[in-house]
Parts: sequence; C-alpha cells; structure tokens
Amino acid sequence: MTLLAVGSVAYDDLETPSGKREHVLGGSVCYFSLSSSRFHPVQVVAVVGEDFGAEQLQVFQGRPIDLEGLERRPGKCFHWKGVYGENLSEAQTLETHLNVFQDFRPDLPATYRPSPFLFLGNIDPTLQLDVLGQMTQRPQWVALDTMNYWIQGAGDALAKVLAQVDILLVNEGEARALSGERNLLKAFKKIREMGPRILVVKRGEYGAVVLTDEGIVAVPAIILEDVVDPTGAGDTFAGGFLGYLAASGKADLEVFRRAIIAGTVMASFTVQDFGLRGLEVATEQDIKDRTQAFSDMIRAGGL
Amino acid sequence: MTLLAVGSVAYDDLETPSGKREHVLGGSVCYFSLSSSRFHPVQVVAVVGEDFGAEQLQVFQGRPIDLEGLERRPGKCFHWKGVYGENLSEAQTLETHLNVFQDFRPDLPATYRPSPFLFLGNIDPTLQLDVLGQMTQRPQWVALDTMNYWIQGAGDALAKVLAQVDILLVNEGEARALSGERNLLKAFKKIREMGPRILVVKRGEYGAVVLTDEGIVAVPAIILEDVVDPTGAGDTFAGGFLGYLAASGKADLEVFRRAIIAGTVMASFTVQDFGLRGLEVATEQDIKDRTQAFSDMIRAGGL
Repeated sequence: MTLLAVGSVAYDDLETPSGKREHVLGGSVCYFSLSSSRFHPVQVVAVVGEDFGAEQLQVFQGRPIDLEGLERRPGKCFHWKGVYGENLSEAQTLETHLNVFQDFRPDLPATYRPSPFLFLGNIDPTLQLDVLGQMTQRPQWVALDTMNYWIQGAGDALAKVLAQVDILLVNEGEARALSGERNLLKAFKKIREMGPRILVVKRGEYGAVVLTDEGIVAVPAIILEDVVDPTGAGDTFAGGFLGYLAASGKADLEVFRRAIIAGTVMASFTVQDFGLRGLEVATEQDIKDRTQAFSDMIRAGGL
Repeated sequence: MTLLAVGSVAYDDLETPSGKREHVLGGSVCYFSLSSSRFHPVQVVAVVGEDFGAEQLQVFQGRPIDLEGLERRPGKCFHWKGVYGENLSEAQTLETHLNVFQDFRPDLPATYRPSPFLFLGNIDPTLQLDVLGQMTQRPQWVALDTMNYWIQGAGDALAKVLAQVDILLVNEGEARALSGERNLLKAFKKIREMGPRILVVKRGEYGAVVLTDEGIVAVPAIILEDVVDPTGAGDTFAGGFLGYLAASGKADLEVFRRAIIAGTVMASFTVQDFGLRGLEVATEQDIKDRTQAFSDMIRAGGL
C-alpha cells in the first residue's frame, strides 16, 4: 500500500535574507519523500546525474523511502539558482540547468506499478500522463502538482492528465492561472469541471485551504520567528498531506482536517533551515510537539 | 459597563470590480459600532456635518448604540473616494475631504467618561491621548487602531498613547511599519516594549492573528464567493472582536479564541455588499449560521 512519487532531484544555489548556500541537495521529490515518509512508505521515481552518490543517499537512509526508481544517468543533476527578497514569498530564478532532467522519461520498476497512491510532482504533463499509463491499475487516488510554465505552455497535455486526477495541489497564483478566476470558490468550481474533485491551495505564509464538494478546511501557517529558506515548503506540505492521506487509507473531510495539519507542520521544519536540513533533523518528538502547539494556535472557540 | 468608541463618520465614493456607489455612509465608527453592538452596548464619539440627519440615524436605531457623543457641526461630513483593483486588498485613494473632521476635538459626554472599555479608532494620536485623558478612571482595557500616516508623521504622540494601550489592532503593513520588523513574532516583541501587551493583526483575505505573552491564536478569513467591497472590513473586525471582549468581561487567550471568530464573522458580512448594508441586514440567525460554518471550516484534527 505504498505511495508512489514522481518528481525532481536537484542541486540548488540559494540566497535568502538569512544567507547564501551553494550546491544544496533539493528538488521536489526529495522534500516530498522526506516529509511523506514520516507518515507512510514512499517509492521515488526521479533521475540523478553522476554528481549524486553515496553521500546524498545518506539523507534517505533509515527511512521508508524506496529508491529503486531513482535512475542514474551520465551528466549532472538538475541545477537551480534562486534568490529571495525580504518578503520570502517568491524567488527570483537566476539560473536553471536541466542537465539529466532534460531527457527524463520515467520508467517505473515493476514493483511500483500497482501502487494505490500516486503523486505526480511538478514535471511536464506529458510525462505525468505517461507515468499514469504505466500503472497496472487505476490508483485509489492520483494527486498532481503543476506550475504556470505548464499551465501556459502545455495546456492540452495538462488538461488530459487533469481529467484523471483526484487531488490537485497548487499555490494560489497557479489556481488562478489555471481557472481564470481570482476567487477561490469560483476557481474550485472551474477546476472541479477539469477533473480534480479536491483542490488543495498552498498559501505560503498564510497557510493552506482544502476545497471539496463536502466542504472547506482552512488553516493559517505556523507563525515562526526564524524563517530561513522557503525553498521546498510547498513540496514538503504536499508530502505531509499526502503521506497522512495514504496512511489513513481514506480521503474524506475528516482526514483532510488532519492531513492539512501534517503538511503544515512538516513545511514549518523545512523553512527553518536551508535545503533539506530542517526536515532531516526534526525528530518524532519535534513533530508531536509542534503539532500540539499548532493545534493550540488554531483552536478557536464557538460564540 | 459600556464600550466607548471614538472614530470617524464619513461618506464614501466607492469603486470595486463589482460596481460603483456614491455617497455611501461609512467611516470607522459606523462599521465598528454596527458590529460591536451585536455583542455589547456601545457609546459613539464622532463628528458629523449638516449632511447627516434623520435618514442616516435610522441605521443605528433599535440597536444598543448610544449616539449622545455624536457632535453635529456646520459643514459636511468627512468624504473619501477610493477605487479597488482586482485583488481588493488595497484601495487607491482618489480624494480625501476632511470637512468637519478637520477640527474634530472630541468632548466626551459625562455619562461616557467612566466607561470600562475604550476603543480609540484611527484618528490623530494627539486626539486619542486627549480622549484617554478625559476618562474619569483608567479603563479596564484600552484598544487602539492607527495607520501608516500617523506612524510616519506623528511618532511622538503615537508613542505616548501606545504606552497606555493594552490592545493594538492594525494590519500587517502597519505592524511592520511600527516595529520595523517583517516577522510577526519579532514585530510583537518590539510593539510589546512600546506598551500594548496584545497585538491583533488583521490580514484581510488571510484572516487574523492575536499575539500575547500567553500564546498565539490565528484564523484564516471566511472564504466567500461574493466579495463586493472590502471597505470597513477592518473596523468591523475590530468591532466584533472588542464587542465580544467587552461582553465577556475578560481578556485572556480563551476569550480571544472566540473574539477572533466574532470579528471574522462580522467582517464577512461587511464585504458582501457596499458600505454598511451587509452588516445592517445580517440577522442573529445569519450570524449564528455563519459562525457554525466558519467553525467547521477551521476545525482541524490532531494527528
């Protein structure tokens, strides 16, 4: 009953108001798997270059993360360089080198193909479709992340894959770009018609919202004093949310109420350090304590 | 045990993506009192011109709103003209005519002076200080709203009044301008040193946060399909929050958990129509129903 996740492994050069770091391991599937594996076993599909070796593998060791689907190719890993301004809400991309990611054609190991839970990370929608087609049966649920680049440039392929998606996880700007609606409820109605019956909107420092036919769940983000690097926060949220969902084996409003907490708590560890470090060092007890503190923060009374 | 509120009465010319309205009754103390009076009796101190008469008074009739402190002067009411873009988060001011507000010198009726709860709406901090000095005794708590205009231009007077304030209610930009800190926890620490021991941060479409020494409470805003005009939402929130606080007679974290809901629910009615209309027509049952719906939306599970 594993959760299969497809995405990118990358080296990032990061600059935020807190400092600079070069050649930091990142990429959507790293953040996602380190986060989701706290709740449920995860299988990873991605491509790495020759600059990914034993040292990098250590990050995943001792965790229920299956790396059989990690393809190694000649060349270098995907490389991204970005800088964040004071408000930390959006990065300016300085450099993008696709490297081995350029020719990435996911080929799922046989053991991955029956997985009941599938997360299609933010890659070319044509590849997302291809992965879906490799599954031996239609997964119990399919979740998908995308971005404006694909919304604007690969609309047809994206429409095809969206038609088969249950859960769409995007940020507010992406939900608006995809639906053409600024208002979240109107955006959900439009996206609902495209396929996904569950829309999860990531709002960065303002938290997250889950919109479904049965109702809406919304939480603010955890208010932290030390936000160092927001890179990977969205993927970490997705990992916590979907990892919790996979573990519970259900996808109803009551589970979403807990899954949105799981995602929010995990993302709060990511932003407290550069790269994967915050996620790596968070202990079970840290997660428990922060979940309790967050529950206290958002617990509101009736009138 | 009344709540005393000082602020402005205005006529607004409003343009939003939903339409245009001219000469709409508004001003901070109108939104505040219509909202707070749902929870607790309120005394109003403000100035109006000759263009404010029986028709305008009707809005307040049949509600526990004391208008003895509404001073009538020759001339016209304060007049503001503003336009909102697609995102509704900030208005562009096209015209401001202070009119009778220019020479406003609040003179509290004798019956107002012993009030235990005082809300100093967004006016010149010198006048806020003057009102505080007219109270027969130090109120049980003093709340204050201000804006960047006073933060930048009247820092000394603002510092003097802040030193005597318990609860500061501002938006995120104002909290940052006042404290010089972008991070909310750091901003609270700085503001804490200026006087207020409770910081209420209004985040518009993203909800609100209460920061205290005992802990933090945060809620998202209610997600609505029909947001027509955000004018007065912040004052309505303050009215609901402080009206609820005055009614409960306490100011601890458990009360803040319910007060933040009261403010959020009331503000959601304001934004659904132009001017005071949304607040005027909301019934007791509407408030109950929306409070329930909102509680459901923000109710999150543990892990």
